[in-house]
Amino acid sequence: MEIKHAVPDYPILSLLAERWSPYGFKERRVSDSDLRSLFEAARWAASSYNEQPWNYLVATKEYPLEFERLLSCLVEGNQAWAKTAPVLVLGVVNLRFAKNNQDNRAAVHDLGLAAGNLVVEATTRGLSVHQMIGILPEKVRETFKIPEHHEAWTAMAIGYKADPDDLPEALKQRDQTPRQRKPLEKFVFTGKWGHSATLLKTVDS
Amino acid sequence: MEIKHAVPDYPILSLLAERWSPYGFKERRVSDSDLRSLFEAARWAASSYNEQPWNYLVATKEYPLEFERLLSCLVEGNQAWAKTAPVLVLGVVNLRFAKNNQDNRAAVHDLGLAAGNLVVEATTRGLSVHQMIGILPEKVRETFKIPEHHEAWTAMAIGYKADPDDLPEALKQRDQTPRQRKPLEKFVFTGKWGHSATLLKTVDS
Repeated sequence: MEIKHAVPDYPILSLLAERWSPYGFKERRVSDSDLRSLFEAARWAASSYNEQPWNYLVATKEYPLEFERLLSCLVEGNQAWAKTAPVLVLGVVNLRFAKNNQDNRAAVHDLGLAAGNLVVEATTRGLSVHQMIGILPEKVRETFKIPEHHEAWTAMAIGYKADPDDLPEALKQRDQTPRQRKPLEKFVFTGKWGHSATLLKTVDS
Repeated sequence: MEIKHAVPDYPILSLLAERWSPYGFKERRVSDSDLRSLFEAARWAASSYNEQPWNYLVATKEYPLEFERLLSCLVEGNQAWAKTAPVLVLGVVNLRFAKNNQDNRAAVHDLGLAAGNLVVEATTRGLSVHQMIGILPEKVRETFKIPEHHEAWTAMAIGYKADPDDLPEALKQRDQTPRQRKPLEKFVFTGKWGHSATLLKTVDS
């Protein structure tokens, strides 16, 4: 098993265990048909009142000026590695309901749900996604004319992950560190905050 | 094909197309082992700085007092149908980074990512999840002693979806309405807000 695969405590779909966020990408192009299916997967996520508050700005390396423009909206630390990805995407969320202009408390959450679907679809296609919160929302607003009550929230680098041996030493280490997670006992509770859920303790069921 | 399945414009994983949020659930119990795998799936989601800001409070119908206590934290409109689900879950997010107490702008988004994983795992197991934003966060805080900088954000009803014919008329209609989504052209842009992405227009690639 690859070093970065999850080692789950309980069985989960291999698609979910295999996924991780690489810092290095191959030059290999991502096909437009694959990208369409990634966004189609996002499209069918659940959202509060079916608002679908997610929007995406996409740039591929086939259009270098577009790519540079989008890359410049990431914080420098992210630009340093994300520039190797063949596709960059900004996630822009509508913070209000279109129908009544009221605040949508679920909006940012639902952007995450849509991203979850996109990432699952990417994994089935052999693609990897590295999501980022380190972007420059006001630069995105100016650069891409984002309307009011909408805000750029995330970015995604999408492509085929590189072989760690082909990466510079710093990135190689990042892409070879085993993945770590808190155990379920630390965040699945019953009855009161901090009380590990009973269902974690049953032997069988 | 079942009436509620998505009719995607581009091919996506059937797991993602099949998923929808039912208003009616069967009485059938969900096994603890299935529930453990659902939370395990959430556990392996990506998060900003691997913060894992998600936490869950769970109640099953096997513990009726716990179930009622959790049910009472939903808004009345949601209590009305969610009471039929065998499992209820509250999603509680840590709004600050544990390591430095700074605001985590990604926290709510990452709660959504974890929910996305949980829902995919549920779908593979024949389970359905109906997510809600309509909860009473301050009631959750008092009832379950939620610590500061944490906030209940979402709820989930989990179980086996009912046959619509077994539902009262109002819910039956809800559970038989075909699912609708905006086309990709309305939310996948290139170069400028509102400009449909070029990659949506290519015939092949």
